[in-house]
Amino acid sequence: MYTIEQLREIIKGELDKQEYIEIPYSLFEPIKYIMEDGGKRLRPVLTLMAYNLYRDDIQKALKSAIGIEIFHNYTLLHDDVMDDAELRRGRMTVHKKWNSNVAILSGDAAAITAYKYIETCEDAYLRNVIDGFNQVAMDVCKGQQYDMEFETREEVSEEEYIHMIYLKTSVLIAGSMRHGALIAGAPKKEYDALYDFGGYLGLVFQLQDDYLDVYGDVEEFGKKIGGDILCNKKTYLLIKAFELAGEEDRALLKQWMTKGHFDPEEKIREVTAIYDRVGVKEAVMAKIDDYLEKSRIALEEIEVPAERKVRFQEMIAYIGGRKK
Amino acid sequence: MYTIEQLREIIKGELDKQEYIEIPYSLFEPIKYIMEDGGKRLRPVLTLMAYNLYRDDIQKALKSAIGIEIFHNYTLLHDDVMDDAELRRGRMTVHKKWNSNVAILSGDAAAITAYKYIETCEDAYLRNVIDGFNQVAMDVCKGQQYDMEFETREEVSEEEYIHMIYLKTSVLIAGSMRHGALIAGAPKKEYDALYDFGGYLGLVFQLQDDYLDVYGDVEEFGKKIGGDILCNKKTYLLIKAFELAGEEDRALLKQWMTKGHFDPEEKIREVTAIYDRVGVKEAVMAKIDDYLEKSRIALEEIEVPAERKVRFQEMIAYIGGRKK
Repeated sequence: MYTIEQLREIIKGELDKQEYIEIPYSLFEPIKYIMEDGGKRLRPVLTLMAYNLYRDDIQKALKSAIGIEIFHNYTLLHDDVMDDAELRRGRMTVHKKWNSNVAILSGDAAAITAYKYIETCEDAYLRNVIDGFNQVAMDVCKGQQYDMEFETREEVSEEEYIHMIYLKTSVLIAGSMRHGALIAGAPKKEYDALYDFGGYLGLVFQLQDDYLDVYGDVEEFGKKIGGDILCNKKTYLLIKAFELAGEEDRALLKQWMTKGHFDPEEKIREVTAIYDRVGVKEAVMAKIDDYLEKSRIALEEIEVPAERKVRFQEMIAYIGGRKK
Repeated sequence: MYTIEQLREIIKGELDKQEYIEIPYSLFEPIKYIMEDGGKRLRPVLTLMAYNLYRDDIQKALKSAIGIEIFHNYTLLHDDVMDDAELRRGRMTVHKKWNSNVAILSGDAAAITAYKYIETCEDAYLRNVIDGFNQVAMDVCKGQQYDMEFETREEVSEEEYIHMIYLKTSVLIAGSMRHGALIAGAPKKEYDALYDFGGYLGLVFQLQDDYLDVYGDVEEFGKKIGGDILCNKKTYLLIKAFELAGEEDRALLKQWMTKGHFDPEEKIREVTAIYDRVGVKEAVMAKIDDYLEKSRIALEEIEVPAERKVRFQEMIAYIGGRKK
């Protein structure tokens, strides 16, 4: 069995070949640019991990796993245009380096490339692969739609928020795992359980991002603390704070959100103080623990020998540790 | 066998059901908006015509044919953003009525919907259907890329132009026909011939659009004459004019293209006069006849009884007649 690090190296080696590049180069250069930009390659690694639960010939799943990474990068290309983002992992976004037309069209080409790669599986699994991938791709679109709508909405409920991040982030994590199991020939009960497992892990991951923005250790987290607070981002913490706060704290929170001029340090400190007062920290930690537990239960449904599940146990432990 | 008009009505009836609409409505409303906007439904009609060459149970191919129409509308959604077009068939474009983010994301959702619809075929054909559709979709992207690049390029050769319109327009016409034959279970030789047939017809269609913009009858053509000339659009006629013209006419053509202020009527009259002088009219008519002849030869490759090919013969006659 492969370690996560080994799988990541195999993915990286395959991506380095840049076999997805076609003519005209101008259409594929932006895809190459965003793809070579690194990242953890989490999704294709998960596909290979899931495949590796059942089979050792992971080379057979490699191209299909790469397709998932290409799909992920297609969503980044278009999301960056829609969010008008300047930077992605410290580098200029494609629509800033070139222009939005380039990001739209190269994104479209990336999506089709993703389909081409993902469908490289045995014929017997093709129908399920395409059905599954269509569902995942559509859910990601829907998640992005809700995300954009929530930005301009006055109130978003906890349930709506969880549904949005589930669609936008978790479904692709879930789909990556299901895909690996599917093309390994796992039975439906198993690949469905892996989908659930991935869905919960994805929620944990996103909630931790929200949590770490406020309560993370700057050095460990690697991002500036409080960024979400400064731009009034509707995170789980903010939504929960409005739900839990009394009238006074709610008014105070609204005040901080509508202030045009403020001292950033002060805003972060004061909003965090409200979060602390109303019990947001405990609420988000409880939610994370809840989903971690649900992911453990889903993993138990997988009927492979315990030693083959070691990597997934490690992953739960690693992700679980992120919040400390 | 169905007539073209019958097939169009069947397509329209199916589209009227709007079964492609999902939740959230906001994501699908722009798709509904552009889809209900009519048009000739040429591509899905071609799919059903091709299917109907071999089989009469066209209901079985209907959903898959609708997928081709949805795909076509996805390309329109994104193209209109990239071209910053204001109007489409007399109505506001989606990115003008809403905004570009809406057009991008609803376009993405339309592309995925297209995949979902197109794959509704018997399992035995699924691999070929997906492969074929991926190739077509990618070619359309490449065509759009070349089209955008040519706009800012000084010189475009006849060969490059034909290649561009082939990718951008003809491949989807070709793919629509191949798709119908494929899901009807036609042998490879036959669906390949239909692909060739459609490719040539697509070229005829696009070259006629270029031709009719200058030499069309206003009332019959339904568009204003000379629009391409006024905006210096690199059409087959303009490219051919530069190729055929002597030094003097070439200089004159360049002069008209770089003039900031001019009388529109005069520009159209003068550029048309150059076209006439250098033999552009004959060149484009010869090219159209050449592709029409090639399409006839491709159609002969189809080994179904002659009476089943009647609709396609009618189509060649109809399209051939467009240039008069």
